Amino acid sequence: MKALVYHGPGNKTWEEVPKPTVQADTDAIVRVDAVTICGTDLHILKGDVPEVTPGRILGHEAVGTVESVGSGLKNVRTGDRVLVSCITACGACRFCREGRYGQCLGGGGWILGHLIDGTQAEYVRVPFADTSTYPVPSGASDEEILMLADILPTSYEVGVLNGAVRPGDTVAVVGSGPIGLAAIMGARLYSPSHMVAIDLVDSRLEAAKLFGADVTVNNGREDAVEAVRSLTDGLGADVAIEAVGVPASFELATALVRPGGHVANIGVHGASATLHLEELWTKDVTITTGLVDTCSTPTLLRLVTSHQLDAARFVTHRFGLDEFDAAYDTFSRAGDTGALKVVLTRS
Amino acid sequence: MKALVYHGPGNKTWEEVPKPTVQADTDAIVRVDAVTICGTDLHILKGDVPEVTPGRILGHEAVGTVESVGSGLKNVRTGDRVLVSCITACGACRFCREGRYGQCLGGGGWILGHLIDGTQAEYVRVPFADTSTYPVPSGASDEEILMLADILPTSYEVGVLNGAVRPGDTVAVVGSGPIGLAAIMGARLYSPSHMVAIDLVDSRLEAAKLFGADVTVNNGREDAVEAVRSLTDGLGADVAIEAVGVPASFELATALVRPGGHVANIGVHGASATLHLEELWTKDVTITTGLVDTCSTPTLLRLVTSHQLDAARFVTHRFGLDEFDAAYDTFSRAGDTGALKVVLTRS
Amino acid sequence: MKALVYHGPGNKTWEEVPKPTVQADTDAIVRVDAVTICGTDLHILKGDVPEVTPGRILGHEAVGTVESVGSGLKNVRTGDRVLVSCITACGACRFCREGRYGQCLGGGGWILGHLIDGTQAEYVRVPFADTSTYPVPSGASDEEILMLADILPTSYEVGVLNGAVRPGDTVAVVGSGPIGLAAIMGARLYSPSHMVAIDLVDSRLEAAKLFGADVTVNNGREDAVEAVRSLTDGLGADVAIEAVGVPASFELATALVRPGGHVANIGVHGASATLHLEELWTKDVTITTGLVDTCSTPTLLRLVTSHQLDAARFVTHRFGLDEFDAAYDTFSRAGDTGALKVVLTRS
Amino acid sequence: MKALVYHGPGNKTWEEVPKPTVQADTDAIVRVDAVTICGTDLHILKGDVPEVTPGRILGHEAVGTVESVGSGLKNVRTGDRVLVSCITACGACRFCREGRYGQCLGGGGWILGHLIDGTQAEYVRVPFADTSTYPVPSGASDEEILMLADILPTSYEVGVLNGAVRPGDTVAVVGSGPIGLAAIMGARLYSPSHMVAIDLVDSRLEAAKLFGADVTVNNGREDAVEAVRSLTDGLGADVAIEAVGVPASFELATALVRPGGHVANIGVHGASATLHLEELWTKDVTITTGLVDTCSTPTLLRLVTSHQLDAARFVTHRFGLDEFDAAYDTFSRAGDTGALKVVLTRS
Repeated sequence: MKALVYHGPGNKTWEEVPKPTVQADTDAIVRVDAVTICGTDLHILKGDVPEVTPGRILGHEAVGTVESVGSGLKNVRTGDRVLVSCITACGACRFCREGRYGQCLGGGGWILGHLIDGTQAEYVRVPFADTSTYPVPSGASDEEILMLADILPTSYEVGVLNGAVRPGDTVAVVGSGPIGLAAIMGARLYSPSHMVAIDLVDSRLEAAKLFGADVTVNNGREDAVEAVRSLTDGLGADVAIEAVGVPASFELATALVRPGGHVANIGVHGASATLHLEELWTKDVTITTGLVDTCSTPTLLRLVTSHQLDAARFVTHRFGLDEFDAAYDTFSRAGDTGALKVVLTRS
Repeated sequence: MKALVYHGPGNKTWEEVPKPTVQADTDAIVRVDAVTICGTDLHILKGDVPEVTPGRILGHEAVGTVESVGSGLKNVRTGDRVLVSCITACGACRFCREGRYGQCLGGGGWILGHLIDGTQAEYVRVPFADTSTYPVPSGASDEEILMLADILPTSYEVGVLNGAVRPGDTVAVVGSGPIGLAAIMGARLYSPSHMVAIDLVDSRLEAAKLFGADVTVNNGREDAVEAVRSLTDGLGADVAIEAVGVPASFELATALVRPGGHVANIGVHGASATLHLEELWTKDVTITTGLVDTCSTPTLLRLVTSHQLDAARFVTHRFGLDEFDAAYDTFSRAGDTGALKVVLTRS
Repeated sequence: MKALVYHGPGNKTWEEVPKPTVQADTDAIVRVDAVTICGTDLHILKGDVPEVTPGRILGHEAVGTVESVGSGLKNVRTGDRVLVSCITACGACRFCREGRYGQCLGGGGWILGHLIDGTQAEYVRVPFADTSTYPVPSGASDEEILMLADILPTSYEVGVLNGAVRPGDTVAVVGSGPIGLAAIMGARLYSPSHMVAIDLVDSRLEAAKLFGADVTVNNGREDAVEAVRSLTDGLGADVAIEAVGVPASFELATALVRPGGHVANIGVHGASATLHLEELWTKDVTITTGLVDTCSTPTLLRLVTSHQLDAARFVTHRFGLDEFDAAYDTFSRAGDTGALKVVLTRS
Repeated sequence: MKALVYHGPGNKTWEEVPKPTVQADTDAIVRVDAVTICGTDLHILKGDVPEVTPGRILGHEAVGTVESVGSGLKNVRTGDRVLVSCITACGACRFCREGRYGQCLGGGGWILGHLIDGTQAEYVRVPFADTSTYPVPSGASDEEILMLADILPTSYEVGVLNGAVRPGDTVAVVGSGPIGLAAIMGARLYSPSHMVAIDLVDSRLEAAKLFGADVTVNNGREDAVEAVRSLTDGLGADVAIEAVGVPASFELATALVRPGGHVANIGVHGASATLHLEELWTKDVTITTGLVDTCSTPTLLRLVTSHQLDAARFVTHRFGLDEFDAAYDTFSRAGDTGALKVVLTRS
């Protein structure tokens, strides 16, 4: 089969590799029908994720059709259309039994396109398939369901649920890239009073309005803390969601929040941040971090099929499955191309 | 001044009475600008609420203007436009300190138009006014804010919050009278997958659609349990809200709910119901009852002013403040008139 | 092997039957080292549980040693000492993924000694063994760990956790049989101010004192509602736990609870109860029912090994594995024998 | 009357000042019967709290007898024995209505001995006395109740409740000074499996054992992270409580916690700390800060009177009310004197 193979920083090729086979009796082999590219894949290509070694097939998001299954699978059957989640869950360890699949101690967690071969290929082997895939509801398109592989559960669980958004809240989201937009869309499910998008790039703020922000702040020009205070009787945001992953954006989130509020970090951080405990110690704040567990995926599937969540809105560019070069190029130059999520589909 | 005085079952008159004065230093005297009639007022007039004695001024919902204040008030000032809540809160007892104002042990709770003179008058004395009134936001109309005196916080707190509605849920509401419709509107804030309205009257089910139900069931003709199961893989509703107040509707709610789900009773009951513990004991259900606390009122005010909640939609009929006879007549014949809430305003 | 086989109401024999073998690849065959009898087993023998058909091996609680395993097991290995839980969990269905194993949709739930052969035998086949057994901590005795097969997680999850017991609470437990005593022991973990045991039998109330009740009420002679009110400024219990399973005890629990309190039903009910909604509708009560999930088992294991929970205290009588007749006799005449839990161990 | 007056850094005198009088109608004048010294008072004396200006009477903890009351008080009466809480609550602002008294927007919060004259005096004026004092239960000693003015609610709310301690948890407390010991005592109410005390001073660790720690770690000599991991299958503490207030202790707390665990900061910080987001972003941690609200005071009072909490254990030294010099000397040299809390009582 063909697959996108990582050959060290800056190097990837769409090349012929052996087709995967069932190795453990809870494996499923899935034919990839639609796949996307994550910001994390760009980090890997820069060499920022050293666990990914040359020879690895990239990708951790897919919608596909089950081609063969191990003898131990109870729910997944050949021919099923499934969502392959970014998180693999053994289903039996302490953390999986608590629904904390991202922290799986039994060989799961984020492994696809990271510690084992991934989804940017014609076929992918999915371990623990009973607890790591979800059936695609009838009537739903591959494209919209694909958005539930990573970006939507990540922003919903790590941003919206950890942030404990409630109706009537003022929610500030720092960063209006795809993850920030997904946090805005997810927070909207709770009917906040104000949804404030904060970014340095005006075109992203325009996108934020389309995804549900009623207030936008360009914090290159405007004081975001003041803007949020003016909406909240001087108190600050009920919930501040960090969706960038650099120290400054996290520190801004902690400055935006009101006494008693929540700061939910979604961003992937490569450096430590300064926590202003000399101000925060009296402020009754709750700060959370988290890796997605995908425990919200069944909920998100219901929200998509009941038209409460317009998942397809993220898809800005479409390619064939063999057009990875063009797709990565478009996605990596999002500032120019306006790409949010690109989708590659088998023709 | 003029007031609507109860003179025993079936008897009420709009008559001249002494204008109220400040009695305790935390009292406010409020000029009534807009007032409505509650289903409970009809019960009182039937003689169902014996604590209400002849001579009592009726009514527990109003929007008005503060005319004078006791010396102990810190927040409420003469000239303020305020929402007079159906619940009066001393603010200092055990339950008030927990936000459970409906259970106030310090002389509050539901007292207006019940144990003391009420709001269906030109002026009303409001005890503990600092903790029993809310400022009307600028730009909001009396009419829409008046809906926050009772019906909206009751259905939101006792139905939606007690029921723990979450995004993606299937929510079944038994009863599509004003309280049921308010529960539908309130549950919509959490983006359920399905909002099922159940009633015996088709015209009410039509109203339910306007308030946000996507599925309606006339349980005079259709099997509501089956209808809900067909939406939920045979499991039942995540949340069943009882909004009628008779044994049959409560028992239906407990039959509608899925294992692990919530039954939230809002209805005012005059008789006991049968609880089928022989079926329910294994079903992991949570059943709640409750009196409104109005602790959600600040949240609901923000939702109205941010246009997340269309409170004014309940107002079907309008009258002058001296037209109580016509207003009661219209409201009590809701089946014919289609009345949801009637509003009487000072001209 | 030998096993205790049900032959219809009133009939059971310890007889030779075929030794179980691995049928599915997630089965384990466990040699039973210690086993106990549940009150439910007595119900089965009376013919109250028609799903149990003649020929069925009884029992759903055991501690044993894994003798053989299916090829699909990842965690359970031959030679492991394991606790066989009363609840079998497929680990992959919707409810298992929420930790609600008692409601397993994938073929689990309470099946041992019910829908499939049970633990009152020399060997037992345990399906889905990875998610249905727990390793016995080194240093712990079979006898104390055996108490975690059913009685302790049931009373802890369905009584204490569902009841939301908090430090400083007044907790009333209706019924001082083994399950009631286990609820007292479990609630004590949260340091209540008062732990009130209510029963009709003085000897049980004496036992309740040993398990941690500081107040006992014989409700054949005393007014339990008044007794609890006198401890709580007239308000009632923060939490009332029902541990009997008849309408009167449930109705007492709902009368004992304070406004805003919790009623947690543990009892197994064969008939419906009367719910006094005409009194309860304003009382802000939360009523819960539930089947044990055993999701608390890892926590309870830690509490036993850290000496926070004296599980062995329940064991009043000990027998050899072939002495089921004597053991059932002793357990079924608990009023005379003082039996709480009987343990049968392989010699 | 006599009072302890602050005269700038390093300067305090027990001197004659005017006796306070009722200024607002919700004031109470309380005769101080017992008073203690807080670590914060030492900070004030060093000049670290510039809001405290020369001339201010120090102290924010007392037990006393109400001598006179303003006309607006409903619950507090002359002659009542009351606990004067460190937090004053207006009872009517947004935060007070949520029980978040420490963030009071209506003129309360921490004001005694800070923004207004305090309790280290023969008499003290207590604003908003209905919501800022608690009746002393009959039978309780001044000394034990005095421990509920600050140290016990602070450690319980900000450490134990914010940290979400549960039965069976491994709880690590960084710092074994009085606040750390109070956190240990408070966490014990939830029956943790292991209570780990971490400090640099062996004598404090000995005290920690008396307050309920079963494991002690001198992190000057031992690796605290390793010690906690060895207790927890390598995962880390369920809850890490910071009870020192310097960057290193906070950073240690964040290193001690397991994936999915809680870090609860109690310490008073004067400088920012480093938050290692590059490690924590995937760890599902929850970090909380907080000022005490004293909303737990009624619970703690019940725990003291039901002998679940041995509050008096903190009192190591006793003085007369005019012996402030000796009392401050003893308290400020805790390393030498072994002082935990000193109590000064009116003779």
